[in-house]
Amino acid sequence: MCNKGETVKLYVVGVGPGDPELITLKGRKVLEEAPVVFCPSTKGHSRALEIIRGFLKGQKVVLLEFPMKAQNPKVHLTKASEVILKELERFKTGTYVTLGDPSLYCTFFWIYDHLREKVSVEIIPGVSSFTAAACAIPLPLVLGEEKLALIPVLYCENLSTYINDFDTLVFLKVKGKIKDLKEFIDVDRYRVFYIKRATLPEQKIWEGLEALEDNDEDYLSLVVVKKCRS
Amino acid sequence: MCNKGETVKLYVVGVGPGDPELITLKGRKVLEEAPVVFCPSTKGHSRALEIIRGFLKGQKVVLLEFPMKAQNPKVHLTKASEVILKELERFKTGTYVTLGDPSLYCTFFWIYDHLREKVSVEIIPGVSSFTAAACAIPLPLVLGEEKLALIPVLYCENLSTYINDFDTLVFLKVKGKIKDLKEFIDVDRYRVFYIKRATLPEQKIWEGLEALEDNDEDYLSLVVVKKCRS
Repeated sequence: MCNKGETVKLYVVGVGPGDPELITLKGRKVLEEAPVVFCPSTKGHSRALEIIRGFLKGQKVVLLEFPMKAQNPKVHLTKASEVILKELERFKTGTYVTLGDPSLYCTFFWIYDHLREKVSVEIIPGVSSFTAAACAIPLPLVLGEEKLALIPVLYCENLSTYINDFDTLVFLKVKGKIKDLKEFIDVDRYRVFYIKRATLPEQKIWEGLEALEDNDEDYLSLVVVKKCRS
Repeated sequence: MCNKGETVKLYVVGVGPGDPELITLKGRKVLEEAPVVFCPSTKGHSRALEIIRGFLKGQKVVLLEFPMKAQNPKVHLTKASEVILKELERFKTGTYVTLGDPSLYCTFFWIYDHLREKVSVEIIPGVSSFTAAACAIPLPLVLGEEKLALIPVLYCENLSTYINDFDTLVFLKVKGKIKDLKEFIDVDRYRVFYIKRATLPEQKIWEGLEALEDNDEDYLSLVVVKKCRS
């Protein structure tokens, strides 16, 4: 297997929220120079690969299967890291692509522990979906000394505390849980936005509680709740 | 002054945390095509301008003065918006650059209300300093269903609640307040990182409480407090 002394290197690139032009210059450079590109996928489909397809120039593309609800996720993680190590043994360098920014909810970190002793890893940040969504509205998420909370799915037990305490809340992975949020929002004190697939051609933005009732199915969507400025 | 019907357009570009290669392809394109570039500055110095200087090709550069502690900030905001409108009346289009991502703590939104009725505004997201810092460590800020809080300066009155409630906390604008944080951190339960000027040549990263004692002066620094995985 790989030996760290051989300067075997893996780059991890956050490719941004969806619009291919929102990749960074560094991310594109690393992609173009990579002999092999690793793409997380579900059922053979990779959103990250869709974004970067236009930047590829004949490199080998390797899909790594990460089922959304794996019965035994460790098996998939071990398998993915073995595939990466095998390819890097041959190519010496490669790039792993991921949606948004690698530090936020990125599958790569589940396999990082398998790789870190064997290869050198450099992580290149990207544009996060939640800030891209805010820019699309456009809405300042936070200004001055305001506080922001980023919450995947809805933790209903503490929701009213969070909403009172933070100036802005971003709810991610809201599929199937969005209606519960409505109860906690006083429309006189908060603005609410539902943003679907920010920066993609099918992007849509709604303001108001009604949007939460009508939209409850899309994985790549988020809800922003923002205190009105007094 | 400008009339919206004339298709006068202002782009706002998040240029990322510091490394010029972390600007997006779209951001660079908009910069290169702009006849005039607006840069927020303090005492004639603009960090955003430093980042983008290599991409400029003879465009007019206009510094907009935003003092860190203005006695009457409204005067500066009104003046800045008047300068922008005057330049756009001549050039019809221009680009306003800002550090990091425009939706997070960006001065532009203080003047947006002065401009929105008169010009068309498009906001292009960028890489945020806090995710770039996490990628540099490297550390996953949040995974799975973890919650993140972004807190500028230290709200000591609720700090213990926040630290208990969130998986990860990012403290920004910590200058002069960082030592207060130490009391609340149980080193057996949390990892603490102090990151100075992420992605810039002078970037430094420390782990541990000692770093909080030793570093308390830099504006462009942040602290990450992360619960240890059980």
